[in-house]
Amino acid sequence: MKIPPVKGTRDFYPPDMVVRNWIIDGWKKVSVRNGFEEYDGPIFEYLKMFQIKSGDEIVEQLFSLKDRGGRDLAIRPEITPTLARMINQQINSLPKPIKWFSVPRLCRAERPQKGRLREFFQWNIDIIGIDDVLADAEVIFTACDYLQDVGLTSDDIVVRISSREMLAALLETIGIAESELELLYAVLDKRSKLSDNVFEEMLAEQVADENKRNKIVELMGVESIGQLGDCLQLSDTAKKSVDELQRLFELLDTMGVADFCVFDIGVVRGLAYYTGIVFEIYDRGGKLRAIGGGGRFDNLLKQFGGPDIAATGFGIGDSVLEILLEEKGLLQKQLPSPQPDYFVAYVDKVYRKAAVKLAMKLRAAGFAANFSYKSAKLSKQLNKASEQNARSCLIIGSEIENDQLIVKNMESGEQELIKFGKFLQQCGIELK
Amino acid sequence: MKIPPVKGTRDFYPPDMVVRNWIIDGWKKVSVRNGFEEYDGPIFEYLKMFQIKSGDEIVEQLFSLKDRGGRDLAIRPEITPTLARMINQQINSLPKPIKWFSVPRLCRAERPQKGRLREFFQWNIDIIGIDDVLADAEVIFTACDYLQDVGLTSDDIVVRISSREMLAALLETIGIAESELELLYAVLDKRSKLSDNVFEEMLAEQVADENKRNKIVELMGVESIGQLGDCLQLSDTAKKSVDELQRLFELLDTMGVADFCVFDIGVVRGLAYYTGIVFEIYDRGGKLRAIGGGGRFDNLLKQFGGPDIAATGFGIGDSVLEILLEEKGLLQKQLPSPQPDYFVAYVDKVYRKAAVKLAMKLRAAGFAANFSYKSAKLSKQLNKASEQNARSCLIIGSEIENDQLIVKNMESGEQELIKFGKFLQQCGIELK
Repeated sequence: MKIPPVKGTRDFYPPDMVVRNWIIDGWKKVSVRNGFEEYDGPIFEYLKMFQIKSGDEIVEQLFSLKDRGGRDLAIRPEITPTLARMINQQINSLPKPIKWFSVPRLCRAERPQKGRLREFFQWNIDIIGIDDVLADAEVIFTACDYLQDVGLTSDDIVVRISSREMLAALLETIGIAESELELLYAVLDKRSKLSDNVFEEMLAEQVADENKRNKIVELMGVESIGQLGDCLQLSDTAKKSVDELQRLFELLDTMGVADFCVFDIGVVRGLAYYTGIVFEIYDRGGKLRAIGGGGRFDNLLKQFGGPDIAATGFGIGDSVLEILLEEKGLLQKQLPSPQPDYFVAYVDKVYRKAAVKLAMKLRAAGFAANFSYKSAKLSKQLNKASEQNARSCLIIGSEIENDQLIVKNMESGEQELIKFGKFLQQCGIELK
Repeated sequence: MKIPPVKGTRDFYPPDMVVRNWIIDGWKKVSVRNGFEEYDGPIFEYLKMFQIKSGDEIVEQLFSLKDRGGRDLAIRPEITPTLARMINQQINSLPKPIKWFSVPRLCRAERPQKGRLREFFQWNIDIIGIDDVLADAEVIFTACDYLQDVGLTSDDIVVRISSREMLAALLETIGIAESELELLYAVLDKRSKLSDNVFEEMLAEQVADENKRNKIVELMGVESIGQLGDCLQLSDTAKKSVDELQRLFELLDTMGVADFCVFDIGVVRGLAYYTGIVFEIYDRGGKLRAIGGGGRFDNLLKQFGGPDIAATGFGIGDSVLEILLEEKGLLQKQLPSPQPDYFVAYVDKVYRKAAVKLAMKLRAAGFAANFSYKSAKLSKQLNKASEQNARSCLIIGSEIENDQLIVKNMESGEQELIKFGKFLQQCGIELK
């Protein structure tokens, strides 16, 4: 019987795995040089972990299951709740600040479409314990550092930045109560994907007062931090978060990534737990879904039973990133191409045993070495060596009677007859 | 609210992640040098995928779930069914032999105990398309190659090898029908964990005839391939598989891993799909659960709707391996210890911006560089640099007025005053 893979999941054949490894290894490398340490949690957690603060959209998309004891579990749709749980567990022994990264496999039961899958990998970095936009700036820098590392420039990528704290203060000025914010954020977050009419209809469902609605629409049209004061009388709280946002942009300039960054009051983020600076990363062309996003979530650890501690971070998925790199012609040319050190060929099947023995000796010494399972003509074996892009081909034939083998350099085509012992010595293999 | 992790799963804090990465990176390195290419599948598959041939024990331990369309899915408890599915999908375009490896995360709802978890990682290698014990030998060699690579010797490890094909032929000689084999295998597989009495009771449930039972007990007591003929009259089929087993041991000798390998007729393997050579890897001390095991599964691809094609491979888990490496004192000393290239310190908070700028420049150029978020005393920052094991500490102070900084070698303690431009040039950073 033939069974297909589940819709929205991917099979990683070796060429796909090379891509996935290259992307994830890049994430790891850039995380480490930016001072982050890797962590991971289990693939599933108690269901309620994700019902606390992940936001309704994510809760609806959970793959939930029961264990044999009847407990409700779910495959993780994001890793931030696990991060909060793990940090809270060891909060007293972990030196601060905590700079951690992870590259988890995540699952969400979304409708699969371009750049959106039911199973994907997501690069997460977080700084816990720094209540200063310097940490937000460093998080944004780290994202840009990776994107530049793989060849993307500020012509390709834009980081749209705002502040939820500021937005809350501005909406308060307009007369929106704190209790109304969460539902309103959900509408504002969808604004860029909606027509003006549909947006205003959805807004009317949340905000009855037309005057307030008009003010909100006007506010969402603001294009620079400077314009905010023209639109509204800034409260002291609003001023404080506007200043903070300005300092963030200065820091991003100091860090050399200002070209990537713009202010965008429309960035709200779908997840419920953000409290301060928020940002989303897009392709400049604007044709693809978000590459990633993040922000400050100062209340989350507390909500998971931990202390009141500052936190900021981001998540970048692999699917949209891969599509963009492919479109920009940056993917294939940067992938590593494997090169076996040796292909051990044999002139006749009587030499196969000697060839196998040599190949295994080379492998045990750390070299990549292949051989032919079937006794084929030497020319066929040489073709195989060439196909596999082997650096050298070792040929075992009658010369073995004189304790010799032929070493063929596959690039130059040069051949050399050499004593077995001498060859092994050259490979750093001790003779027993 | 505080939520614990699910029983039988692990949180990987950074020090645990270093261990996990070291183990998995070792698996990957040894796979590549032995000529295997990496693949992976989704974390869940259709439930029925695992009901086909995984064996009852595994089916009972599935974490199953429903997607929103009501389809029955399960988190993978092993990757071999996925391997069969993926290879069958591309059977015509994949060059043979197919040598693939994977390091999947797997979940089984077993009762957690030492070396057995509900979530673990398993190194899988498989050779598809070689109907010759040379492939079985190469698979066993690859396992030994890794075990030797991490410092384990044949004093620590034993690979117990048998043949299901041979066992089937021998049991047939005793008078066991083919249809009775699967249930009997399950009993024989448990023998080493049972007392003689309990084993014989369980055996009696499967085999009513006392005479046959005695023959089976006698057969299971055979300690060498040579003794088999003394115990039973070998059929032609049995002779053929005995010869094959003998050739396997010769090949393992040629490959240099004979010291690790012994014949053990008691090795049957729990999984239902094995057809020929089977093996299990144990610590010599015999105190731990199996480190891994594998064998030939020539019918599996066909059972998944594919062609009749030969296949052999193994799986080695991370939990028992880690316990053994720890017990042998081989773990901690081999773990990589991260070393940031630079720690950028600043004498006063007025220089913080310059320090941050320099740190980011260094990171973007590929160096690992840290800095202090808070303006602390220089001595405190130097302590931090030392704690983090930084190679050099860069000190930004009043010398910046002369376009200079101090480079302190953290090992020798030597300090050097150097021009910014010259330092950046030494780091290969272009001046703009």
